[in-house]
Amino acid sequence: MDQALARAWLATAVAEARTGLAEGGIPIGAALYGADGTLLGRGRNRRVQDGDPSLHAETAAFRAAGRRRTYRGTTMVTTLSPCWYCSGLVRQFGISRVVIGEAVTFRGGQDWLAAHGVEIVLLDDPGCAGLMRAFIRDNPALWNEDIGE
Amino acid sequence: MDQALARAWLATAVAEARTGLAEGGIPIGAALYGADGTLLGRGRNRRVQDGDPSLHAETAAFRAAGRRRTYRGTTMVTTLSPCWYCSGLVRQFGISRVVIGEAVTFRGGQDWLAAHGVEIVLLDDPGCAGLMRAFIRDNPALWNEDIGE
Repeated sequence: MDQALARAWLATAVAEARTGLAEGGIPIGAALYGADGTLLGRGRNRRVQDGDPSLHAETAAFRAAGRRRTYRGTTMVTTLSPCWYCSGLVRQFGISRVVIGEAVTFRGGQDWLAAHGVEIVLLDDPGCAGLMRAFIRDNPALWNEDIGE
Repeated sequence: MDQALARAWLATAVAEARTGLAEGGIPIGAALYGADGTLLGRGRNRRVQDGDPSLHAETAAFRAAGRRRTYRGTTMVTTLSPCWYCSGLVRQFGISRVVIGEAVTFRGGQDWLAAHGVEIVLLDDPGCAGLMRAFIRDNPALWNEDIGE
């Protein structure tokens, strides 16, 4: 896909991550875009804010997009490589593409998704990596809780 | 694990599935049990009831269990073979065991979980299968929506 468009969409996810950080939460954001470029839903990790372990950024964006007949042609944009939980979401619902801010602080199921036909766009964004690096350094226990380690 | 105990735990998930059916929802239920047999959380598919596509039975039970430092030794009990989304949840959070009511009307990521060290207990329960068979027959569009097909 067009890299400028991917970066523009990533900005939506980054804004969610920054809002989460300001709320005292885990700074991971995501957004689901339709095939025509419509923003269908956006969200952020809500473990701390809602005491809800089931809302990772990607599942929050998926939830915000509401019920849909199909996810064909949609793109999940996320600031961080999707964990197995969120990778499973992408595979089960047939989301066509995942745009990833960075995969250096954590690497989830992106290769598995690629092997199953999902287009992966890795932006290797230094801002996303810096945000997570600082968060993990300052909150290791909370981070480990969020990824089940 | 002890089959009688597995069947006793499955009854909790079946009760959730039946409640969901009575609410007009998709009849899939789940429960998360601790290593010591404590019921940590229970839930049911809430797509219809809450208009929320992110709450499959397993994710609803996981959510109801709240924030936890570890899932080591826990068992996810579900009336139906877990889809990729719910299988990803189990793998990411290190849930140790999955008790499955039936895997004939739908088969998700159970073999993948077994290959990654998760204990799978398949009960092949005719009641669970009958519930889903009737539901899928009467609501094919809703069922396909729930599994992204």
